[in-house]
Amino acid sequence: MNEFELIARLIPLMPSHPGVIVGPGDDCAVIDLGLPDRYLLFKTDAVVAGVHFDAGAPPEKIGHKALARALSDIAAMAGTPDCALVTIGLARGFDAGFVVALYAGLRALALRHHVAIVGGETTTNPERLLLSVSVLGTVPKARCLRRAGARAGDALFVTGELGGALRGRHLEFEPRLAEARWVAERFSVHAMIDLSDGLAEDLRHLLQASGVGAELLGRAIPISQAARQSARRNGPGRTPLRAALSDGEDFELLFAVAAPDAVPLTDAWKRQFPCVKLSCIGRVTAEPGLKLRTSAGLREMTEHGYVHFQEP
Amino acid sequence: MNEFELIARLIPLMPSHPGVIVGPGDDCAVIDLGLPDRYLLFKTDAVVAGVHFDAGAPPEKIGHKALARALSDIAAMAGTPDCALVTIGLARGFDAGFVVALYAGLRALALRHHVAIVGGETTTNPERLLLSVSVLGTVPKARCLRRAGARAGDALFVTGELGGALRGRHLEFEPRLAEARWVAERFSVHAMIDLSDGLAEDLRHLLQASGVGAELLGRAIPISQAARQSARRNGPGRTPLRAALSDGEDFELLFAVAAPDAVPLTDAWKRQFPCVKLSCIGRVTAEPGLKLRTSAGLREMTEHGYVHFQEP
Repeated sequence: MNEFELIARLIPLMPSHPGVIVGPGDDCAVIDLGLPDRYLLFKTDAVVAGVHFDAGAPPEKIGHKALARALSDIAAMAGTPDCALVTIGLARGFDAGFVVALYAGLRALALRHHVAIVGGETTTNPERLLLSVSVLGTVPKARCLRRAGARAGDALFVTGELGGALRGRHLEFEPRLAEARWVAERFSVHAMIDLSDGLAEDLRHLLQASGVGAELLGRAIPISQAARQSARRNGPGRTPLRAALSDGEDFELLFAVAAPDAVPLTDAWKRQFPCVKLSCIGRVTAEPGLKLRTSAGLREMTEHGYVHFQEP
Repeated sequence: MNEFELIARLIPLMPSHPGVIVGPGDDCAVIDLGLPDRYLLFKTDAVVAGVHFDAGAPPEKIGHKALARALSDIAAMAGTPDCALVTIGLARGFDAGFVVALYAGLRALALRHHVAIVGGETTTNPERLLLSVSVLGTVPKARCLRRAGARAGDALFVTGELGGALRGRHLEFEPRLAEARWVAERFSVHAMIDLSDGLAEDLRHLLQASGVGAELLGRAIPISQAARQSARRNGPGRTPLRAALSDGEDFELLFAVAAPDAVPLTDAWKRQFPCVKLSCIGRVTAEPGLKLRTSAGLREMTEHGYVHFQEP
């Protein structure tokens, strides 16, 4: 067991109270503080130079990504972000222009999604830049989506195109806030998660939380151009499908919808979000486990998601 | 202008919205989310090895301090903490026992103050341990205390004893949550702040926010034993009074109370908190600036607070 697994075991042993509707282990914590019809959503996310972005990445994009990751988790509960706190650990030798550009990236994204930046903390982290963003949001009680809740027979949908995000998109993605709220308001969505660790890994999280399995259709997985380019460079073992299943950092939405809603959702989505692809990639099964159907037949999935936290 | 001053100027230029009652620059952000009689308090705070604690500090105490700092800010608004998220940036080579002990320190403090730990984030920060804690709390609208609000004639009070906290107390202090709520409920407290940068510096923050000045009585400043010991070691230039005024990391409360409440407060406090010292250290003046009265007469205060963020 490494430190990350250890902490994942320690956190659920921490104190809780009856107002905690969803504690550790989902995309956001969900808290009932007595708001008439809404829950609070509470989330924190950190990015570290050399771990979550290259030290040479443009500062506007670093600021953007730091906030966008946390907003993507609010989206995954079908919530609306309200305000955020930004902690910055500054490495030695940063210049004013870099810091100004970083906050400009944060500011532009916050403005687009009406998120107030209400403070934060500045410290030194001498060897590398670190940004930690905490977001507060709300969600109507009846619409709060969790990882748990998928049912056998549900159709599985994913937004956008997957794979190869580290070639650039991971610094530029727009959190799917409007899309998540729209689908949660109009269709029987049973479970949702945002894709940070790769489709294979995050789908496993959703299935485990729901106590079900799934069968994916290989040719329905939306493969990005970047995934095809990565696969071409990396040789025969690394197919575009494998990249789409396991690369990670996509920050797209994955959700399970009642089967009768699948066709009406697909039609309505095209009208509502003509520029955002929506793909039905498979279905939920009562039997646990994850299977992939390709031209070679049906097989157990062996692909593991992108593993975060590799030391640089 | 250094990076810290630059960020302090950038943060107020970030987006806001009408639900933000208090934005950047106070101990906590204060948000109106529609709770009937309460505001939300939102705060984040970070500690970094070699900056806020020695790398060899006991892990229980590191965990304790990381949460206690944020709770002290909730106390400074007379609020009640509800839940927290804990982000940990792990350096290379940490062992399981260290991590378990760190979370045990966090857990014990959270339990004492009924704070739910509802999740967090784990990442690598290869060269040094970093902990970032975000806390959500509430405060009755009519009782929310800010840095602004002190009035000429108010009596200035401080809890505990000041100075020399880096000799040990900065890793062990108990946030003054019960004390702050008690005094806010019973007396005309006009402004409050917690002491992190040293009495001289934090008092200046309170006075500037309130648009007033103050006159302190040197012999009324509560000087800790640790401050006397530090002063003895550091030679003639570093008096115990100077240590108490400027050392920082005390995490005591400083507040301004309507003058007629000063004596009743002093009497009631002794009965309510017999183990926590309360000192009336001076009074608020209409004239801006900070003056100190000692046996040598009245003089402008020159002491600056402890400066955080010195690179290790």
